Amino acid sequence: MSKERLLAYTDAVIAIIITIMVLEMKTPHGSSWHILYEMRHIFIAYVLSFVYLTIYWHNHHHMFQPIRKITGKTLWGNSIMLFALSLVPFATSWMAENHFDTNTVVLYGIVLLLAAASYYHLSNTLRANEGENSAFAKALDKDRKGKASLLLYIIGTASSFIYPMIGLIIFGIVALMWFIPDRRMEKAIDMIEDIIE
Amino acid sequence: MSKERLLAYTDAVIAIIITIMVLEMKTPHGSSWHILYEMRHIFIAYVLSFVYLTIYWHNHHHMFQPIRKITGKTLWGNSIMLFALSLVPFATSWMAENHFDTNTVVLYGIVLLLAAASYYHLSNTLRANEGENSAFAKALDKDRKGKASLLLYIIGTASSFIYPMIGLIIFGIVALMWFIPDRRMEKAIDMIEDIIE
Amino acid sequence: MSKERLLAYTDAVIAIIITIMVLEMKTPHGSSWHILYEMRHIFIAYVLSFVYLTIYWHNHHHMFQPIRKITGKTLWGNSIMLFALSLVPFATSWMAENHFDTNTVVLYGIVLLLAAASYYHLSNTLRANEGENSAFAKALDKDRKGKASLLLYIIGTASSFIYPMIGLIIFGIVALMWFIPDRRMEKAIDMIEDIIE
Amino acid sequence: MSKERLLAYTDAVIAIIITIMVLEMKTPHGSSWHILYEMRHIFIAYVLSFVYLTIYWHNHHHMFQPIRKITGKTLWGNSIMLFALSLVPFATSWMAENHFDTNTVVLYGIVLLLAAASYYHLSNTLRANEGENSAFAKALDKDRKGKASLLLYIIGTASSFIYPMIGLIIFGIVALMWFIPDRRMEKAIDMIEDIIE
Repeated sequence: MSKERLLAYTDAVIAIIITIMVLEMKTPHGSSWHILYEMRHIFIAYVLSFVYLTIYWHNHHHMFQPIRKITGKTLWGNSIMLFALSLVPFATSWMAENHFDTNTVVLYGIVLLLAAASYYHLSNTLRANEGENSAFAKALDKDRKGKASLLLYIIGTASSFIYPMIGLIIFGIVALMWFIPDRRMEKAIDMIEDIIE
Repeated sequence: MSKERLLAYTDAVIAIIITIMVLEMKTPHGSSWHILYEMRHIFIAYVLSFVYLTIYWHNHHHMFQPIRKITGKTLWGNSIMLFALSLVPFATSWMAENHFDTNTVVLYGIVLLLAAASYYHLSNTLRANEGENSAFAKALDKDRKGKASLLLYIIGTASSFIYPMIGLIIFGIVALMWFIPDRRMEKAIDMIEDIIE
Repeated sequence: MSKERLLAYTDAVIAIIITIMVLEMKTPHGSSWHILYEMRHIFIAYVLSFVYLTIYWHNHHHMFQPIRKITGKTLWGNSIMLFALSLVPFATSWMAENHFDTNTVVLYGIVLLLAAASYYHLSNTLRANEGENSAFAKALDKDRKGKASLLLYIIGTASSFIYPMIGLIIFGIVALMWFIPDRRMEKAIDMIEDIIE
Repeated sequence: MSKERLLAYTDAVIAIIITIMVLEMKTPHGSSWHILYEMRHIFIAYVLSFVYLTIYWHNHHHMFQPIRKITGKTLWGNSIMLFALSLVPFATSWMAENHFDTNTVVLYGIVLLLAAASYYHLSNTLRANEGENSAFAKALDKDRKGKASLLLYIIGTASSFIYPMIGLIIFGIVALMWFIPDRRMEKAIDMIEDIIE
């Protein structure tokens, strides 16, 4: 039950963060198509962040399925991740309103990096709670994907200082890498089910 | 449990989208009835979109009741639908503040069309997951209503280019068509219950 | 399960409506106590509406506990109630920003009346679904409180045309009347438990 | 089930309050780092309030785990706490936009005091419901931490009148005190589990 409440709270926070971004699409004055076209940066940035937040929700969903123990550390690890994600709408609209200007893409990268680092930290907390011999730890294994993401976000953020476009492309690659929900977690669930049977 | 979390998340997002539209009803300056009357377009557009989103919620509710399997494709199909629905508040307030001007009704139609197409896609994903012989697939059958909606939204959006009013009427017809929660799904649930007994 | 999803969705919508009102308390410029004092109308109106919405949530909570059947009519009856409640933030801030001016109190009364009427309608829908011999119907009985509320809201709204203050006092009386969660529903739950035992 | 609905509603309200604060971080005009640096007060205040609200959620979560009985008084005690917490975003942004000016820190302290007092009141309501011999009452014991928090908030708010910085430091000490989720509640759960076994 404790786990269910943690997940319900997390879902609510992510759902609100994702939807609050829509409020940044302020209704423009006038009804010409040109005026709508002027909002393209806002729309593109919204799509990007919607995809990122959805990926976090999907992976969080997968990661917690085999989890059996919620501790104080889990709660805080999870809240730190939610804090990082809560900065996404601000970074998104700063980037959008300044048409993907250098500094703003760098900040966007830093926020994505914070989110990835806190997610990585959360997965390590869960692994420590479940124990090294747990199905979860075995499924997470060396967590190559988590480490690769962190590295790519660092490279992407650094690149943004010079070419924001390259930064954005690298961020996009990380998104693609996580697009398909994690097979490793599905393997863990299978293992647990095998043991129960 | 996985299904429950998907539904809880969907409910939260739809609940937020529906309620965020209220924020577009900005408090006017002055307390005369005339000033309130000036807001009639905003109010009418709000009612329309409230009804549409409620219909989506009701039908989503019905559609998922007989579902037994949630896959990665279900999650993404569902998120694409939520993305389309998240554009409704923007389209609504653009339409409202420009007094149902041609372009704005066309955009509203396009957003409704996107939502309907993503819902249709989601129902097909669910059908593929459940299998052609499932109670769900039999209940969905040829999904005439889903296909008819898509067609009507296309016609409605096209008509809006010439007469926005006709577009709005056609959109209203689709709403009415979906008003009564889908009997087909209730049939599927009955079938499952019969088998269990 | 269907019932749980309806309740979860209702809770989410009410939670958002109640919290969205806080956004109307716009941060004032300057940090003097006088500037804060100037916001007293907004604060008082917020407290009032917070209490009303909380009462609705409490009573909804109580009303649904003995319910065993959710139909399409329940869903729509519930959504109409949510629509009426979603107008509360607008009516609240219009009233607050115009310092409880006549027209604005009248509108506030109309919104409260709409909410009460839709709640009354919902309770009748539930009664029809459960059947006249159900524990729910017996507990609701002649629903004197529901009818009295409607009457008082009509009187209160009419009075507001002349003396807004009297209207507000009458609205306050209705709130007090509903303050204590409905004993009738608790009786129904007791009856059901007796039958099970 | 009643308890679950109370918790789900509480989670939704806290999730919305916490996320709504992000809306106060208005997108600044211009993309220089200097402009971002100008927002440091807003960011610091956001972090502070995020931590406070997260602590409330964590402790609420812990406090309710051993609870077995939800009464009308529980509902109201809980709603009063939610009301106090709903004032946090306003107090936060008033404090942030006035760069932690004396009056604004005093108000922030008063809101924190209100929240702590209502939480203290809620825990006493729960204790009365569960009975003095319940595992919950024994775990809560003399509630030294609750009483100490109230005292510290009073001292902190009073200090803010003279040195806002000292007030903020005292508020920070209370946060630290509650940082680690309450061991007492975990003891209560253990006791219940022992009895069941």
